[in-house]
Amino acid sequence: MSSIKMFEKPLGMRDTLPAIYEKVEAVRQTGRNFLRGHGFDFIKTPSLEYYDTVGKASAIYDASLFKLVDSQGNTLVLRPDMTTPITRVATSKLLKEKIPLRLAYFASVFRAQQTEGGRPAEFEQMGIEIIGDKSVFADAEVIVTAIQLMQSYGIDSFKITIGHAGLLNCILSDYTDHKEQEHKLRTLLVERNYVGFEEAVESFDLPKTKSDALLQFINEATNIKAIEDIEKYVRKNDALVYMQQLANLIETANLSQYVSFDFTLSSHMNYYTGMLFELFAEGSGFAIGNGGRYDGLLNHFGSEVGATGFGIRVDRLLEVLPKFEVEEETVAVIFEAELFTKALQLANELRQQGSLVTLQSKDGIADEKAFALNFNRTVYVSQEDLSNE
Amino acid sequence: MSSIKMFEKPLGMRDTLPAIYEKVEAVRQTGRNFLRGHGFDFIKTPSLEYYDTVGKASAIYDASLFKLVDSQGNTLVLRPDMTTPITRVATSKLLKEKIPLRLAYFASVFRAQQTEGGRPAEFEQMGIEIIGDKSVFADAEVIVTAIQLMQSYGIDSFKITIGHAGLLNCILSDYTDHKEQEHKLRTLLVERNYVGFEEAVESFDLPKTKSDALLQFINEATNIKAIEDIEKYVRKNDALVYMQQLANLIETANLSQYVSFDFTLSSHMNYYTGMLFELFAEGSGFAIGNGGRYDGLLNHFGSEVGATGFGIRVDRLLEVLPKFEVEEETVAVIFEAELFTKALQLANELRQQGSLVTLQSKDGIADEKAFALNFNRTVYVSQEDLSNE
Repeated sequence: MSSIKMFEKPLGMRDTLPAIYEKVEAVRQTGRNFLRGHGFDFIKTPSLEYYDTVGKASAIYDASLFKLVDSQGNTLVLRPDMTTPITRVATSKLLKEKIPLRLAYFASVFRAQQTEGGRPAEFEQMGIEIIGDKSVFADAEVIVTAIQLMQSYGIDSFKITIGHAGLLNCILSDYTDHKEQEHKLRTLLVERNYVGFEEAVESFDLPKTKSDALLQFINEATNIKAIEDIEKYVRKNDALVYMQQLANLIETANLSQYVSFDFTLSSHMNYYTGMLFELFAEGSGFAIGNGGRYDGLLNHFGSEVGATGFGIRVDRLLEVLPKFEVEEETVAVIFEAELFTKALQLANELRQQGSLVTLQSKDGIADEKAFALNFNRTVYVSQEDLSNE
Repeated sequence: MSSIKMFEKPLGMRDTLPAIYEKVEAVRQTGRNFLRGHGFDFIKTPSLEYYDTVGKASAIYDASLFKLVDSQGNTLVLRPDMTTPITRVATSKLLKEKIPLRLAYFASVFRAQQTEGGRPAEFEQMGIEIIGDKSVFADAEVIVTAIQLMQSYGIDSFKITIGHAGLLNCILSDYTDHKEQEHKLRTLLVERNYVGFEEAVESFDLPKTKSDALLQFINEATNIKAIEDIEKYVRKNDALVYMQQLANLIETANLSQYVSFDFTLSSHMNYYTGMLFELFAEGSGFAIGNGGRYDGLLNHFGSEVGATGFGIRVDRLLEVLPKFEVEEETVAVIFEAELFTKALQLANELRQQGSLVTLQSKDGIADEKAFALNFNRTVYVSQEDLSNE
């Protein structure tokens, strides 16, 4: 064995011990029931995909991909997201059966880490995709579903910040002089580096009208209350009309209090083409989820039907979840060697009453008292009849 | 893109579409409730482990491992089984808190395939491990739990075949002249190649008493009704006494009808040291599960406490499961553009009544009739009031 110690795990890899497992399971069950109730069908895709198909299309930085080579010499990746594999399944198969599709998942995704900085290299995501509906109603449904899902978890204090990839591109293009400037500014916005954005604008030597507009935009556009406030930056166009419709739908659904608009919002997921959003909740410094319209990815897979969806990080959702108590009685039935059958019968009776019952021979434990401490209640099945402790 | 087509998946990789997903989910829920009721705690381990620790200890053929190299130059493997990672967690951590441990899992494991022969390269296993109890009661519990788990799925026609790795080693060693012969015969038994076994015995040029004993053993020992029937092959020893105790416990639990003994049973999992078994059910030509005592693996991780458990392949369990019907009403609520809020309210009401409700704008579908065919019921929310179809 090289320098790796017997019990070590690869960088960013984690064990999920029983207490957390049960919390994740509760999140999973609530999410499943909620999303199935909203017409979403759960699917699963393989952990490994071809790099040339799903890997490249996923828009995850190459350095974050876990890559391996199969026995045929093809490069495989551990799926870095679920949207791309689901798009593969939908465009190759499911869209022929039903359109639009509403699909949901609860799955691990993988992102290689370069340093042990606390970031997980494998984490669970829960999400939905509506594939084959280009209407604003599909985007409204995605946002309403995200809001109602938060409510179903008993989370009150959360916010959805909505932007538009196409509008941002328009503005960046209009107020810069060439593509490299545009690209540079977009990269800074993906990193949320507003100071860097301002410095870059000033370094570009742009006409004063353009640089003033960009500096005003970066200060104003992160928290827009009404869509018309963005009109001063961009000529009236379809995207603005679309965003106004979306805002109206959220308003009529009486959910505006959960929503704000940030037209500087940009994503490293370059397949987002229209509306995109992030979900924040009190208790986590990071976005617990994000989503948007990704018609571009559908195009990549040869389809023109459009798609929209969101994904939520389960680890961050756990951080913002209200405390909940599981009411289950744990019982240990400890038996002497000759009384196996009697103990088995008793255990099965207690199980039928809803208890979680561990059957344990006295012979198999060294420290009986320490073992009993793990349970709400211990029942001894001994020769001197059954005695309850 | 090289020769790989856009929609292809790596060798042996599968998508799980909604209908199968729900069946797996039902299996998962039944299994979870059953195993938690029996005192098992669910845990999860990472998909990737170090090759030098878990990879090598897992006893899966090297060619079946998916290997990759991380940014530090360490070789990682996609976990080929769950027993080895769980042993890592138990010996490094959990055994300090509770002993014996009862752990359960429902997880994907990975085995690289060399050809597209229908064998999955990623499949789900459900299993249990009892770690830290060397008594025969722990082995009896594992077997009883496997039997009751089958019953909880409504499976009637199944059989558990039990052998003993130590006893088989004794017999092979006693009746051969050197280690290579012993090794050769064990390999043939792992492959269930009985004809090859007989041919090998005859080719060894053994004393007639030895070769006769081996040939008789291979014919008789696959279906032993009473443990004493094996005594003619091996001097009375602890393992025989142990197997007699195990048989008695199964007998007193009134479960003997599900059990037979096969002392030729051998596993490529070379960490099995004592009792081992396979689970067969009507409807699958393959073992749907297997298990046994693997004290040897505990030793590998520096612990002497012993362990026993089983794993069941979920794909094969699905093949033998009785048909079950899910009674859920699926409803499509199709609305005209102006009636989003009204439709949303209606959908939420139907959801509260337990239906799985898809909210769909008329604008977003090209073929309304085809779409409606996917649901038990379609409700239209249109300007001319609500009309039910």
